Amino acid sequence: MTAVSSAPSTSTSFDLGPARALSCRECGHETPLAPEYACQECFGPLEVAYDFGRVRREDIEAGPRSIWRYKGLLPVPSTVSAHPNTEPGGTRLIQADNLAKALGVRKLWVKDDTGNPTHSFKDRVVGVALAAARELGFRVLACPSTGNLANAVAAAAARAGWQSVVLVPSSLERAKILMSAVYDGSLITIDGTYDDVNRVAQELAAENEDWAFVNVNVRPYYAEGSKTLGYEVAEQLGWRLPEQIVIPIASGSQLTKVDKAFREFGSLGLVDETPYRVFGAQATGCSPVSTAFKAGHDTVVPVRPDTIARSLAIGAPADGPYALDSVRRTGGAIEDVTDEEVVEGIRLLARTEGVFAETAGGVTVATAKKLIESGKLDPDAETVLLITGDGLKTLDALGDRVGPRATVAASADAVINALKD
Amino acid sequence: MTAVSSAPSTSTSFDLGPARALSCRECGHETPLAPEYACQECFGPLEVAYDFGRVRREDIEAGPRSIWRYKGLLPVPSTVSAHPNTEPGGTRLIQADNLAKALGVRKLWVKDDTGNPTHSFKDRVVGVALAAARELGFRVLACPSTGNLANAVAAAAARAGWQSVVLVPSSLERAKILMSAVYDGSLITIDGTYDDVNRVAQELAAENEDWAFVNVNVRPYYAEGSKTLGYEVAEQLGWRLPEQIVIPIASGSQLTKVDKAFREFGSLGLVDETPYRVFGAQATGCSPVSTAFKAGHDTVVPVRPDTIARSLAIGAPADGPYALDSVRRTGGAIEDVTDEEVVEGIRLLARTEGVFAETAGGVTVATAKKLIESGKLDPDAETVLLITGDGLKTLDALGDRVGPRATVAASADAVINALKD
Repeated sequence: MTAVSSAPSTSTSFDLGPARALSCRECGHETPLAPEYACQECFGPLEVAYDFGRVRREDIEAGPRSIWRYKGLLPVPSTVSAHPNTEPGGTRLIQADNLAKALGVRKLWVKDDTGNPTHSFKDRVVGVALAAARELGFRVLACPSTGNLANAVAAAAARAGWQSVVLVPSSLERAKILMSAVYDGSLITIDGTYDDVNRVAQELAAENEDWAFVNVNVRPYYAEGSKTLGYEVAEQLGWRLPEQIVIPIASGSQLTKVDKAFREFGSLGLVDETPYRVFGAQATGCSPVSTAFKAGHDTVVPVRPDTIARSLAIGAPADGPYALDSVRRTGGAIEDVTDEEVVEGIRLLARTEGVFAETAGGVTVATAKKLIESGKLDPDAETVLLITGDGLKTLDALGDRVGPRATVAASADAVINALKD
Repeated sequence: MTAVSSAPSTSTSFDLGPARALSCRECGHETPLAPEYACQECFGPLEVAYDFGRVRREDIEAGPRSIWRYKGLLPVPSTVSAHPNTEPGGTRLIQADNLAKALGVRKLWVKDDTGNPTHSFKDRVVGVALAAARELGFRVLACPSTGNLANAVAAAAARAGWQSVVLVPSSLERAKILMSAVYDGSLITIDGTYDDVNRVAQELAAENEDWAFVNVNVRPYYAEGSKTLGYEVAEQLGWRLPEQIVIPIASGSQLTKVDKAFREFGSLGLVDETPYRVFGAQATGCSPVSTAFKAGHDTVVPVRPDTIARSLAIGAPADGPYALDSVRRTGGAIEDVTDEEVVEGIRLLARTEGVFAETAGGVTVATAKKLIESGKLDPDAETVLLITGDGLKTLDALGDRVGPRATVAASADAVINALKD
């Protein structure tokens, strides 16, 4: 990490709602709210610390259907919804009885985050990043990405009337490039791997003071957006926590933030502090956190990703150690699945519940199956699966395994005959 | 129309909520609720007639976020949400200030129906069709389709645990075939045009008594699902009607049902009965209703479609005359736009509001622009645009007109230089 601060402003009186300070996750050192992301003492990652005051169910329930109903729990100004934004969140939590039966568990829920504006959970984190970036004085919204984040940043910037700079590898599928380009920000494709793109983003963030790279120099604020997945699940369950939840791991941030959301809801008295277990899901082709978990290690050894689950293909996951902490503290587990299992997971979810997930969702479903079969996930405990992205974005993963039952001539008899086979 | 009835059951005591009878739109003849779709007297199309009783805002507001909050206004059993379904509806209505400015109008809203489970408004109509079909005794969910409806039927059937038979032309894009196949119903591709597929569906509906072809023999119930778009717009505006609304026309059904929804809300006292004008949007390559409107005709002359807006490419629109009635009664207009304007419409909406629409959405935006420029749409009146499907499903329409700004080497300087150009 080369840049500790990328401050576009020296003001210290930012209105970020209940956010009180930035706190180092390693040494605990606190620093005032600012456009910073690494600890000045130890270079550890900074996280938002809060003074929540009183937060009541009624106030949340009276809010909008978007993530802004939880604005009193996020590092955003109280006026956040007055600014044009994509209004993410409010996605379905569906009772998945068919999938429960197929997996042999008693009670299962699927949180279907494909209903977000650009069809992934990234709209949540980008929404919070944009709101914080505006208050912190940034003027350009930017990111390095392999797809979902690029879509979310380009769309959010367009709606907010901001310039965007989105960096992706030039080898990206044409569909993902089109989806990122249509919003008419500055999409730059870079000849290199995602790691190369990421390095360029770090350099640009250090050199351009008013560029908010959402997942680099605004990361402490951005990451908090994932808490809304946890809040929504708990509220949609009728203000209570599930007993088990299975969450895909890319950087590991989402998993730790859902855990944080559950703890906050408990400590604020919004739900009973019932025990819950957090489970992590990875693709075997990029499973550094799963490997560390199984070996009993606290540190995560980087790997070179090789999996169709590209949105989870982060070989050196920044929040891997914290994800390990959450899983171990709650008594959960982490497992990984092959690419073939990923595709079977996508198909199983579509066939049983009519939800078409991207590869990351296949990882979650297949990992849940494996955890159940090995007895690590209790089939009698109520379980939630997080489906965080859309199958329309990873069609190629289905390969030749999905297709029509038959192609026939234009006659009713031909159709009937085809159905008999 | 060859089959007047495709009755799988002779019972006459169906629980379809407030639905009272089927009424012929041509001769007014009423018949008891049944699995019928054409008048026994004159072969005219049947429509659902209701006895609503008292419907209160509070009861709707206390309902689920899905279309089932309006179950008291739909031909579905009161227990509808107890059966697994995709839970469609509850999509965003966003205040579109950027697009308003670009188009030179005072106040504009975009109803973004891409947030539905399979990302088009078809989830709404299929949801109602499935609920009615269950009550009417059908056992298989089916449709002829060119894409969106296929996705919605296959997904809804999977979640409900029903068999599905989905018929599409074999020339359909691979993406749409994969999307329809992944839910693992019986997808049959047919060598022929969509008209051929439709004819086969009519034959199969007549021959297979327990198959509910949602848009054929269950059409009176299915079509009512589009009313929920109108209900949601009015509720989301704070229980009032917009002054103007622009709606794409395929069969014309959606336009007439949104009009019906506004009238129902008014007559039930749920909103003030303020005047509103309904505008229709077509692609010039398939504009039979627009042509009839401009010529002052009551009948619609079929055409052979030739447009990139495939989801609107119905050359002989069944509800065309009724759409003309709605538009003329409310003082609106119908206009059509070229394929080039369609793509510009998609890009304009994405650039200004961060919403990525399919070609039908491009038709709506471009038509609104044309209506404003010609003075037919009042720029000072509050206007709603219906965006009914997702850009991810019609990527090819963007052609080479959308892409990255530049492709560069992996260095910060290269990115900065590319942004200067």
